Amino acid sequence: MKTVAIIGYAHEKYGLLSDNTEDLIRKMVKGAIENVDKGINPREIDWIITSCVDNQFSEQHQTGTVAWEALGNPMAKAFRVEAACCSGSLAVYLARNLIRSGLARNVLVVGFEKMSAVSTLVATGILMRGSSPEERRVGITQPASYSIMIQQYMKKYGATEEDFAMVSVKNHENAMRNPWAHFRKKITVEDVLNSRLIAPPIRLLHCCPISDGAAAVILSGEPKKYTDAPVYIAGMGMAHDAFSSFRREDPAFLLASKLAADEAYKEAGITPADIRIAEVHDAFTPVEPMCYEALGIAKRGEGYKLIREGVVMFDGAIPVNVSGGLKAKGHPVGATGVGMLIEIYLQLRGEADQRQVPNVEVGVVENHGGTGSVSIVTVLRR
Amino acid sequence: MKTVAIIGYAHEKYGLLSDNTEDLIRKMVKGAIENVDKGINPREIDWIITSCVDNQFSEQHQTGTVAWEALGNPMAKAFRVEAACCSGSLAVYLARNLIRSGLARNVLVVGFEKMSAVSTLVATGILMRGSSPEERRVGITQPASYSIMIQQYMKKYGATEEDFAMVSVKNHENAMRNPWAHFRKKITVEDVLNSRLIAPPIRLLHCCPISDGAAAVILSGEPKKYTDAPVYIAGMGMAHDAFSSFRREDPAFLLASKLAADEAYKEAGITPADIRIAEVHDAFTPVEPMCYEALGIAKRGEGYKLIREGVVMFDGAIPVNVSGGLKAKGHPVGATGVGMLIEIYLQLRGEADQRQVPNVEVGVVENHGGTGSVSIVTVLRR
Repeated sequence: MKTVAIIGYAHEKYGLLSDNTEDLIRKMVKGAIENVDKGINPREIDWIITSCVDNQFSEQHQTGTVAWEALGNPMAKAFRVEAACCSGSLAVYLARNLIRSGLARNVLVVGFEKMSAVSTLVATGILMRGSSPEERRVGITQPASYSIMIQQYMKKYGATEEDFAMVSVKNHENAMRNPWAHFRKKITVEDVLNSRLIAPPIRLLHCCPISDGAAAVILSGEPKKYTDAPVYIAGMGMAHDAFSSFRREDPAFLLASKLAADEAYKEAGITPADIRIAEVHDAFTPVEPMCYEALGIAKRGEGYKLIREGVVMFDGAIPVNVSGGLKAKGHPVGATGVGMLIEIYLQLRGEADQRQVPNVEVGVVENHGGTGSVSIVTVLRR
Repeated sequence: MKTVAIIGYAHEKYGLLSDNTEDLIRKMVKGAIENVDKGINPREIDWIITSCVDNQFSEQHQTGTVAWEALGNPMAKAFRVEAACCSGSLAVYLARNLIRSGLARNVLVVGFEKMSAVSTLVATGILMRGSSPEERRVGITQPASYSIMIQQYMKKYGATEEDFAMVSVKNHENAMRNPWAHFRKKITVEDVLNSRLIAPPIRLLHCCPISDGAAAVILSGEPKKYTDAPVYIAGMGMAHDAFSSFRREDPAFLLASKLAADEAYKEAGITPADIRIAEVHDAFTPVEPMCYEALGIAKRGEGYKLIREGVVMFDGAIPVNVSGGLKAKGHPVGATGVGMLIEIYLQLRGEADQRQVPNVEVGVVENHGGTGSVSIVTVLRR
């Protein structure tokens, strides 16, 4: 099976941006093409996959063609994919397969979301589309669905609201070192515990913001032609679980992420002990400890202890979300998975500036959607 | 390269349906699974690809997971794709590649669109997302963009409004034989010419309706295991052209469809002379003659003569849109490409009932989007 690597990227700051969807796509296409160490000709890009989560944000049915026009290779082919919050990872998954199957030499993946294109009220309605039809029918929003999972987790394992607050504090602190982060503001445990209650125990300062943003990567089957420092996609896995969190065998466990991780590790030939750094899907920070467990870097029921023990802090043994995570870096949905991969890519190349973690050989991205009903895990290595 | 075939299908009537998106998906999943000659176990389906064109119609960010739950194979993986009006063909294109690359044994493709989920006014706004950002900025709707193409075509080649009216008459007549068609009503040339002007020369009776609908196919890499009469996907091609029709080198020619056809024919080892039947993208019937030219069944500038000479009529040498086409069968966008393939599948299996064309060995589907800025052509054979 052909080895596929990331050979270039572009990344827009997350936050409230004046650019529209089209502007964002164009910037990412041009930016990624210009950001390949030894250069790449647009004619060497055979496919483009775009990732965004809602047409009401993008106002387009053909973001693929918009990207195709920006690329300038008439023979390239382009389309859009969607799988809720892990759309970005899905695009990379499929891009890799296009290369492996011989349909493409190089594939450009462009993830974006222009969430401020609509009012907050409309955005709230749109985001309900990420919940299961059943949950919506009975009035369970996505924070409420996560709340069911987290309540179960607290009851079973004794995690506290302070533990969860610490995740937010950690991710905000990390974001201080990330110029692309939506929020660059320190917060304290007290700030979190005193913030507005959303869906108990979830409070405002546990929630990711509504962000605009975009990120792109170029994948190649002949990486050494384009760079001396490619970052290999050593393994990827994808899995599903019941859409409604209350239907799952164990709402306190991210089974889809665990299955996806197993698949990715097997392909990459690694074990959780090999992981030096991870980006995980902290759309609501109390779920972050569950991600550690799904990835196998903590035992089941003990994820929150990694926070208490400092293991996942910036200077810990396995720093998690050094980018600031979805909580503080932001969560422009279709861009998120791509942006997470770029963070690990930079760490592996030693180019993460102020947030560089030393001695990174293997990094992992856990990107789930629909409160864990779909998940993609990626193993990256030098 | 592995040969991939269609081994089963499901097809919902097009029109105004009481089912919601979730209902439609479930029906298609169950229907397709039950409709395989020798039977198939859901555990043999490795991937599901859903196709729909707008989240505001589907009210979902995870139609993949909805289909996955309906399937009942916990190890399957699912996602959604979109490329405007050719989303359905794109899903099949990618499904075929998942099989060829060894990622799947069998793939279920589910196309649908619940266009009546919103008011006609809202639907009109949504459908503007199929136009290029530039066209929208200057106030060119999709019918207007097609009108530019058609006006150029008339001027260059002498096609008349009567020719275009005949396409609508033909497709309505064909739909009389199709129980799945949205419109089953004969119309005359006079009816068309007297109908309301939309964007000259396009009149109301040239326009496809806003339909609900759904269609599904199962693709297999080991077809003989599941049926003695598989329909092979002998070739597929995909290509793009400028998003705004007025930017194209020749707005009177569907270049993307021609490039896609060239690619598909090359792979299938056929020439246009081998084609016995075709389904083409008559979203606005005056564009249908251009589709003949792109497919090479008419010379450039002579497509409309096939109407005058009766070649493309039900009893002609190459009947086109015997299903009734988008015009009369309907155009539930995400389902359309899948439904077109099913029509040819049935024709090749000799199961098209009243609308069966004799001696069909090779059939072609031309499914374009964004007035021809993206196109996929598929060659099917026994």
